[in-house]
Order: sequence, then structure tokens, then C-alpha cells
Amino acid sequence: MTERSLIFPAAEYRTRVQNLQTRMAQDGLDALLLTTPADVFYVTGFLTRFWESPARPWFIILPAEGDPVAVIPAIGADLMGRTWLQDIITWDAPHPEDDGVSLLAQTLCDLTAVDARIGVPMGLETHLRMPLSDYARLSSRIAPRRFADGTATVQRVREIKSAAEVVKIQEICAIAGRAYDRVPEFAHVGRPLDAVFRDFQIALLQEGADWISYVAGGAGPDGYGDVISPAPPTPLAAGDVLMLDTGAVRDGYFCDFDRNYAVGRASDAARRVQDALWHTTEDVLTRLHPGMLACDVHALFAQGLTAQGVTPGGGRLGHGLGITLTEWPSFTPLDTTPLQAGMVLTLEPGAQVSDGTYIVHEENIHLTDAGAVLLSPRAPRTLPEI
Amino acid sequence: MTERSLIFPAAEYRTRVQNLQTRMAQDGLDALLLTTPADVFYVTGFLTRFWESPARPWFIILPAEGDPVAVIPAIGADLMGRTWLQDIITWDAPHPEDDGVSLLAQTLCDLTAVDARIGVPMGLETHLRMPLSDYARLSSRIAPRRFADGTATVQRVREIKSAAEVVKIQEICAIAGRAYDRVPEFAHVGRPLDAVFRDFQIALLQEGADWISYVAGGAGPDGYGDVISPAPPTPLAAGDVLMLDTGAVRDGYFCDFDRNYAVGRASDAARRVQDALWHTTEDVLTRLHPGMLACDVHALFAQGLTAQGVTPGGGRLGHGLGITLTEWPSFTPLDTTPLQAGMVLTLEPGAQVSDGTYIVHEENIHLTDAGAVLLSPRAPRTLPEI
Repeated sequence: MTERSLIFPAAEYRTRVQNLQTRMAQDGLDALLLTTPADVFYVTGFLTRFWESPARPWFIILPAEGDPVAVIPAIGADLMGRTWLQDIITWDAPHPEDDGVSLLAQTLCDLTAVDARIGVPMGLETHLRMPLSDYARLSSRIAPRRFADGTATVQRVREIKSAAEVVKIQEICAIAGRAYDRVPEFAHVGRPLDAVFRDFQIALLQEGADWISYVAGGAGPDGYGDVISPAPPTPLAAGDVLMLDTGAVRDGYFCDFDRNYAVGRASDAARRVQDALWHTTEDVLTRLHPGMLACDVHALFAQGLTAQGVTPGGGRLGHGLGITLTEWPSFTPLDTTPLQAGMVLTLEPGAQVSDGTYIVHEENIHLTDAGAVLLSPRAPRTLPEI
Repeated sequence: MTERSLIFPAAEYRTRVQNLQTRMAQDGLDALLLTTPADVFYVTGFLTRFWESPARPWFIILPAEGDPVAVIPAIGADLMGRTWLQDIITWDAPHPEDDGVSLLAQTLCDLTAVDARIGVPMGLETHLRMPLSDYARLSSRIAPRRFADGTATVQRVREIKSAAEVVKIQEICAIAGRAYDRVPEFAHVGRPLDAVFRDFQIALLQEGADWISYVAGGAGPDGYGDVISPAPPTPLAAGDVLMLDTGAVRDGYFCDFDRNYAVGRASDAARRVQDALWHTTEDVLTRLHPGMLACDVHALFAQGLTAQGVTPGGGRLGHGLGITLTEWPSFTPLDTTPLQAGMVLTLEPGAQVSDGTYIVHEENIHLTDAGAVLLSPRAPRTLPEI
């Protein structure tokens, strides 16, 4: 039985390819070579959790004109055959002597002229998902063709979401919102944090997530020391601020927002920080507009929090979101990416409660010509008590 | 509050470091540079799902002597500070102009002589988790030091599991076993496959998995076309063979085995294939011993299945297992890795039922001097009917 596995109609992918090819022409690239789960999914609709296995590389070639070509392990032929792609070439991977390199080199040479510049994402927030020594062999096999940086080419296209993509992100945000509403059902004084993490993942699945790629959190009397830790078995205590953060997935699209709860009554310091985070976010939501730079958003948050009398957290205060948990750009003082209508972004201000502890607040938004539209259900103004 | 986050006592990591340094000396490497979640976790115990964000690179340097040094984004300082590592250097990532490259180059130069060969895993089943252009800059910044392939160095050490590691894998196998036992509670005629996938993930969490990094499966009257697809909303039908496969995680360790079920009564063809898979696995279980090569195991399966009158599936018929869903070696005709006591392996024979459909059988084992010891609860001889 051959069921199509497209997520979107083929027209969505054709538009993406057209946008990439337009940008490739501007950037002087004669083809793109894509290797990561997100880039492959973006162009083809090929969605699998099998990327979890590091055993095999997967390749999509996007020529200057025409449809993409998949050069992939045979184990993926059936699933790739159910996407919109017609041109699928396979080898029996993993192959210890030639794990697709000859096949890929030949296909690249067939699809491009000898002086071609072939774009590979190699800049900030990218990596190449194939063995480094195979990349070196590939580079010499395709010469005088050469690889060039395709980061901006991919980023400028992927960062603008279609209406269909925004709907997908909105769906998973709504799913996570319902799961967050249920946290008081299973988080209470004495309950170990790891049990809370398990129940939260169960709630996300029950509310409609396909899978949960990311859960982090923490709990303590004045917030938490970081936002990336797995859960310890420590029981929740009265006065803790509990934070849960998730990147849950539906149809390949992520949400990424957290929620904070007070276990009993939070400290005055924690309440003051929560208040500053909420009001600053409220203010930034009204000010966001296309044409600002990513660093402008960082400045808005930093100034807003400082004006409220709290100390902003370090690091970035938000980022892009879509088919990975985090995407370009980053709200840091150094990121000068212009914001554009169609971007989906997280607003993620954090502020210090006491030495070494923080509260982090997070929302997901769609940037439109009319400003920010919330995709996550807005966090409550005060910490919900559980 | 600083809780240690070690998974194992520090002695476990010190032994790993010692084993790596012994191997490095044999391989002529003066340091190792590690960048992937698994390699970083292996040496440090640093466990987080934050790797899901592609935004930031993370680096562990293992010098020829002495403890590892972490060069990591500031966001990870708190969590890395709770591992056994003492030497943790951070930068504020993502940094668009210098995302850790100068800091890493300086640290590598401080730790090694000018003629050092620094191992980076760059062979089969590896990738470099940092931007390719940063790797090029790093390479020139550390010259005349140079990078060399560290794949075998890491593989030869990681592939031999300590007793403590085997216990962890056994735990997650037992958790998955209990979840598989509960599949008849939620899989039945008419129930959509995507709902079954959700309930299966919920069962895994309820039985004790920390998270579920991999679920795949399929269902059809004569098996399924592949073993890597996400679930469609297709309802289960009488006569289907349902397969679920999972890489669930507890304390950073994976199981990786599947189970098959008959929805009502399976076809005679499906039952014949199940019988051949079960008996061939039974036979291979008694024959496995250290000193065989990975390709010998492939041959045993292929010959056994053929002798039973069924056609073996293509691709590999098993692989290593541990801190990633799949590890070296691969049971293919070309992999000549010698099997050693201490390896944890999957036995994963598949066989064709009809044109384009297969049944795949999978167990997880610990190879000892006395032979194979099952870590997964042995699959039933006949397909359980649900």
C-alpha cells in the first residue's frame, strides 16, 4: 500500500524550491547540497525520527533548475517514494568503503557544469551531517566544481514561513498550551521533578503531539540555575518556582515556549521578576515590526527589564522557530538580521532573581506587517499557584 | 543549590578517559576533539536534550594526559559544572563573528605541542557538530598542529561497555518490554496507527523511560514496507501485522528493539516468516561469540533465513547500541569489525513476506566471553494476537 506522506500539498514544496532557486541565482550558486533533517524535510516533506541513528548520511541535491534529487540509503526509498520527489537514487548503507560518496559525486557532476559553485550550509547554526573525511573525498571528486557557503541562501528562504507552516506551528503551540494548563494536575509539593517531566510529556502526547523532542525545566525557591537540564528526582517544595519548557512536535513543526508555576506562594523576589518579565514582554509585543533588526529586539528587552528594576539574563533573549527547536536569527546584541513579515519567533526574556538563579518567560509569535501575532496562548500575568 | 548530575560515579568517567588515552597513544594522537552529544556525554556525563537546538557548538578536548577540558556555550556552564569536569571554559553563544573558534583554538594550542596530531571522528557513522567554515578556520588557527581521523580511537573504546553501562541498557530494555506487553491494551481493529504510536510512547513514559527519542512502526496484511516511517492515521485492520520499534532513553542509554503483533489472525505467509525469524534468531543467539566478525553475523542470519525458506531483507541485520540509537559495528557483508566481549548489540533480521513487505525481528544482547546474554525480554515465538 502506497500512502502519500506529504504533510503539505506538493505545491507547497514547489514554492519552496522556487524560492530557493531564486535565491541561489542571486547568490551565484549552481546547486545546493543539503544533509540535515530540517533541510531535507523542508525541501521534500521526508519526515522520520530515523535521523536519531547516526549511521547513514542522506543527501538532497537542488539544482539551479528543476526538481530536487535524493541520493539516500536504500532503507529510506519507500518513505522518500511517498513524498513528492520523483528522482530518488539509493545505495545500500552503511557501506564501509564508499558510503554514497561515488554515487553523490557522480550525481552532482551530472547535474552541474564543471565550473559549478555548489552551496552547502557551513555558517552559524549549521553543521554538515556526513563524515568529514567523506566530504573531503567528495570535494576532490567533484573538482573543478567547488563547494561554497549556502547558509544565507537557505536561511533567507526558510526564515519566512508560509501560511501553511504558521498554521502547523499554531497547532503545536495550542497542544502545548493545553498540556501546560494540566500541569497543576500532576505537580504538587513532594512530587519528584522527574515524575513531573514524565507526566508533562504524557500530557503533551494526550493533547496531540506526535512526539516530544525537547523538555527541560527546573525548580527552586528563586527560580533555577539553567534552562537546559534534565529533571533530577528532587521533590517539589513549597515556595519553589517550577519551570517547564518544551519543543513538542506535530507534523514536523515545533513549538518552543515555557511556563512557570509557583508551588504554593512564590517569594517576593520571584514575583517581582515575573511581573517585570510579563510587562516587558507585553510592551515588546506591541513594538515588534518588520524592519527592526534582531539586535533591536534584544535591546528592547534589556532596556525594558532594566527600567523595571531587574537584571536581564545573559545569552539570547529569543530566536527563530519552525522545523527545528531553534532557528536563526538570535536576539543578541550582535545579530543584525533584519526582521521580516512571515518570520516565526520566540520572545524569551530571562531575568535574575538571586545570585545564580533566574526566571525565563517565553512566547511564540508570528511577525506580520501589522506586527506580532501570538501563536502560544499568552502566559498568565502572575505565576499560577499549584 | 548545586546537585551533582553524574549518572555514574566519577570513577566510571576516569576509566573511560584512561581507556581513550591509552588508545590515543597507540594511534599516535596527542589530543581528541569531541563535538557530538554522544561523545561529550561519554566523557563527561553531560546529559541534556538541548542538543536539539542546532544553534551552538560544544567542544570537549581530551589531552594525551590529564582531565578533559570543556569549551562550551555559557548556557551550559551550570549543568557542565555539575559533572565531574573541573576545567570549563565558556563563551556567550551564538556569536555571529567568532562562535567559540578563537577560544577553542587557543585552548587546543595551550594543551598540545606545535606538531600535535589532534583526533576528530571523521569516518563512518560520524559527523562534526560544528559549522564547517569554523572547522576550516580552526584548522588554520591551530597549524602546524593538524587534525587526524579519531574514529577508530573513539569506536574501539566506546564499543566495549562497562558493567555499569550494561545495567543501564538492561533497565531501559526492561522498561520497553513492559510497554510492549501493554500494546494489546490500546491497539485493536479500527484504532488509527498514529493513536497507537501516541499510546505506546505514553506507556514507555509510564513504565519509566525519561524520554523517547525514536518510535517507528507500520502495519499491513503482510507486514510493512519500511521500518523508519512515522505513523499515518490509517486504522488497524483485521489480519494486519503491526510492528512497533523504539529507541527509548533512561539516564542517557538507549534500547532499540521492536515487537510484532497480529491484529486478529495473521496470514500464513506472515506466520511462516515470523517462525523463520524467531528460530534463526534463536540459533544465532547460541552461536555468537567474541572473535567473530560483524560480517559473520550477517552471514549466519542470511544462511539461517534462507535455510528456513525465506528471503532475508536487505541492509544491515543488526548493529551496536548504547548512548546512541545505533552504534558501530553493522551486521553487513562488508563490516569486518571483530566482535568483542563487552559489546552491546542488536540482532535485527528482517525477511520478505510478499513483494515490498517485510517483517523485522529485533533483540538486544550483551556479548560476553560465554556468549550472548539477552538484554531485551525475548520476543514470543508466535505473533501475539490482539
